[in-house]
Amino acid sequence: MTGSGDGPWTAEGLARAYSAGTATPSSVVREQLKRIGTLNPALNAFITVLADSALRSAEESDRRYRSGNPRGPLDGVPVAVKDMIYIQGVKCTAGSKILADNVAPYDAPVVARLKSAGAVLMGTTNLHEFAAGTTSVNPHYGAVRNPWDLNKVAGGSSGGSAAAVASGMVPIALGTDTAGSVRIPAALCGVLGLKPTYGRVSRLGVIPLSASLDAVGVLARSAKDVGVMLRVVSGKDKEDMTAVEAEVPEYDAAPPLRSARVGVVKNRFQDYVDPRVEADFQAFVARLRGIGFAVVEVELDGLGEVYERWLPIRRAEATAFHLKWLKSAPELYGDDVRTLLELGRDVLAVDYVGAVNARPSYMERFSAAMAGVDALALPTTAVPAPGLGQSEVKVNGVSQPVYSALSRLTLPFNYVGFPVLSVPSGLIGGLPVGVQLVGKLFDEMTLLRLAAAYEEVHGLFGTPGGVTAAPPTG
Amino acid sequence: MTGSGDGPWTAEGLARAYSAGTATPSSVVREQLKRIGTLNPALNAFITVLADSALRSAEESDRRYRSGNPRGPLDGVPVAVKDMIYIQGVKCTAGSKILADNVAPYDAPVVARLKSAGAVLMGTTNLHEFAAGTTSVNPHYGAVRNPWDLNKVAGGSSGGSAAAVASGMVPIALGTDTAGSVRIPAALCGVLGLKPTYGRVSRLGVIPLSASLDAVGVLARSAKDVGVMLRVVSGKDKEDMTAVEAEVPEYDAAPPLRSARVGVVKNRFQDYVDPRVEADFQAFVARLRGIGFAVVEVELDGLGEVYERWLPIRRAEATAFHLKWLKSAPELYGDDVRTLLELGRDVLAVDYVGAVNARPSYMERFSAAMAGVDALALPTTAVPAPGLGQSEVKVNGVSQPVYSALSRLTLPFNYVGFPVLSVPSGLIGGLPVGVQLVGKLFDEMTLLRLAAAYEEVHGLFGTPGGVTAAPPTG
Repeated sequence: MTGSGDGPWTAEGLARAYSAGTATPSSVVREQLKRIGTLNPALNAFITVLADSALRSAEESDRRYRSGNPRGPLDGVPVAVKDMIYIQGVKCTAGSKILADNVAPYDAPVVARLKSAGAVLMGTTNLHEFAAGTTSVNPHYGAVRNPWDLNKVAGGSSGGSAAAVASGMVPIALGTDTAGSVRIPAALCGVLGLKPTYGRVSRLGVIPLSASLDAVGVLARSAKDVGVMLRVVSGKDKEDMTAVEAEVPEYDAAPPLRSARVGVVKNRFQDYVDPRVEADFQAFVARLRGIGFAVVEVELDGLGEVYERWLPIRRAEATAFHLKWLKSAPELYGDDVRTLLELGRDVLAVDYVGAVNARPSYMERFSAAMAGVDALALPTTAVPAPGLGQSEVKVNGVSQPVYSALSRLTLPFNYVGFPVLSVPSGLIGGLPVGVQLVGKLFDEMTLLRLAAAYEEVHGLFGTPGGVTAAPPTG
Repeated sequence: MTGSGDGPWTAEGLARAYSAGTATPSSVVREQLKRIGTLNPALNAFITVLADSALRSAEESDRRYRSGNPRGPLDGVPVAVKDMIYIQGVKCTAGSKILADNVAPYDAPVVARLKSAGAVLMGTTNLHEFAAGTTSVNPHYGAVRNPWDLNKVAGGSSGGSAAAVASGMVPIALGTDTAGSVRIPAALCGVLGLKPTYGRVSRLGVIPLSASLDAVGVLARSAKDVGVMLRVVSGKDKEDMTAVEAEVPEYDAAPPLRSARVGVVKNRFQDYVDPRVEADFQAFVARLRGIGFAVVEVELDGLGEVYERWLPIRRAEATAFHLKWLKSAPELYGDDVRTLLELGRDVLAVDYVGAVNARPSYMERFSAAMAGVDALALPTTAVPAPGLGQSEVKVNGVSQPVYSALSRLTLPFNYVGFPVLSVPSGLIGGLPVGVQLVGKLFDEMTLLRLAAAYEEVHGLFGTPGGVTAAPPTG
């Protein structure tokens, strides 16, 4: 690939190279397809690769650049979309056997926005079946492998999107996040993962897991790229009642933050966090101080109870959606997903309604706790990537389920709907881990500016890593 | 009372008399208080009468009229508010023993709007305990009596509001409607009752029964008065997420409709409807034809299934709200309400979520059925007012619970959220019954214009009736 300044591996760099004429969308897309062809058999990050249509849309993009009329910062940029999100005419399996032949009848609004922006859709990414898990060990399409160690999970449920971005197959991808499904694989694969504020991005045309908790999110290798993508996919959708009217800021023009107060979450479930993760987190916080940010401790009142509120919502909504298939074809589910979905049958409506009704009070308490800071920080996962097939991890001498270890720190923010950006914070035994930056409602901007300030000092977060994922040479 | 043209018994007439100087707010309020004093011991329509503050605000209104600056068509008009809606500093009991000493800490936005409009708050009206029933036979505050026959129920749950309006204690009142709680007592007491579109009126500061179904509604004796009130209380409330941004039309300026297509609901549960009610309905429809409106038959696809969807929502939401009291003080509830609330404990979350999720599809089917008409018509209740203490009614030789006979025809429209205006359609054995006019979403205007056209030909709907409720002489 033709090089260009700070590298063509970000959307930002690609747009600059296209405009400068040092690269063309079709040359980049051909190289990315080649890279997918090389790495995907090992990583299993894609379910469908859209080689032909990607090349066609890249050529259209070429013409727009040649005629001096590109559509903006995503024109000609390869993107991948989690196989939960409708691309008209393309299979949307949700990683399931049940929807193996489900051809999307329309573009999800987020996909329509990507197409309008000239982005090149490279394919759909593998995931935990129906997004109902945190490992992306998929019984129907194979496990997504971690680019840093093929024997480790990529995390989930947006594991394919994370692996594709981390291994340099695409610079940006979309995922979905109900309990941490964007942030967990982003952390375990060493890329950035943003779960926007609930309501920021339309979920129409996205297979639901739990509609009160689901968010469409972004995985990328720089804060700027997250902003570029977020700006394109955000905004009101009259068909999705939960997509709010709020104005979409110019995320892609976010300047680095010059001063900030970061609140370290005091009650961050330390007993359940691997001491190496805790040490990595402390080192990250020290770097924040080194940049010149003020760091204070913040107690998130109610954080410990959130799981009990999140759980009936997640279980009941997912099971309500799956009920007809649970009854008609339970054998088509993987064992883990079916077992979890069956648990949702027993949830009482009063507990569900109680959990929904309690949400505003938790939002208020968290908002109050954040009044004096610009963002909160806490680890993304309690452990680095577990091994493929591993169901428990030992932390501080105590076994805990992988599901808990990966999602305990992420899922509270689905319940309250706050935006969270997971950024890579370091390596533990060669495996990435991440830190969550939690913003105030609809204030994704501060998170992106904070991350941009960090990148300015410490370099781009997401360098493709791991044996199988060395950056390709052009 | 000083007479004036078409009568001071409507808000419209009062405003005209005030402006013409033929009556003053304080003289009217004094007369209304006297009437309340005379009739309330028999009807039991009010829980709290706000004599002092009503007189004070009437005097302020006097001054505004004297200085030529009245605040609009509700200035100086006496209104009553169901004892579920917060008036700052006034007890809001919800008709319960549990909240017997609950003093409202703030004005509900609808009350604040009434105050700003200069309306005179006469007091809070009696109701079925916690609005959880259709008779207003209240074990704690006594049964509301029907002004047309003191041995009959007023209907509920907004029975006090209906009785107060029907007996001429106030021209207008607010109620709430979750299964028909505005329309049922309006029909049984012979006044108009509007359940607006879900989201048209803020429910903040209103004790909830079932938040997905509750609507604040209006009871009055003319279509114009319903419009005057609706315009004042409608509108966005940023604190109530469900209160929509939709512009508020000038309901009070609605001219009578000159032509209309009315769809008679074909599948209107005829087997469960008293043949006398059916005959009354047919006569009403004939009068619509007589006015010159086109009448066609419309099948409401799915109407028969709606009860099964409405039920888990109503039960689960009410029980979730009451759970702490059901556990701590079950003996404080009346038997009927406690028994119903206990049933909500067993509702499964998947059934609740399924019902909520199915709502848009029913809204679509009903909207499609209404595409070719301006409004639908069907009876409001299956029977006229049952006797006090009666728990079953016999229709076509078959016994059915009073609750079903009164709400079977009303509650489907709470589930889909469509606006419905119940208008008095006639008398059966001296007891009023009503017809529901169902509008398209947010099209209350057409209903009010249709009713205004009917009134033009047949006179104002709501003449105070019954032995105890002869209009007072001034």
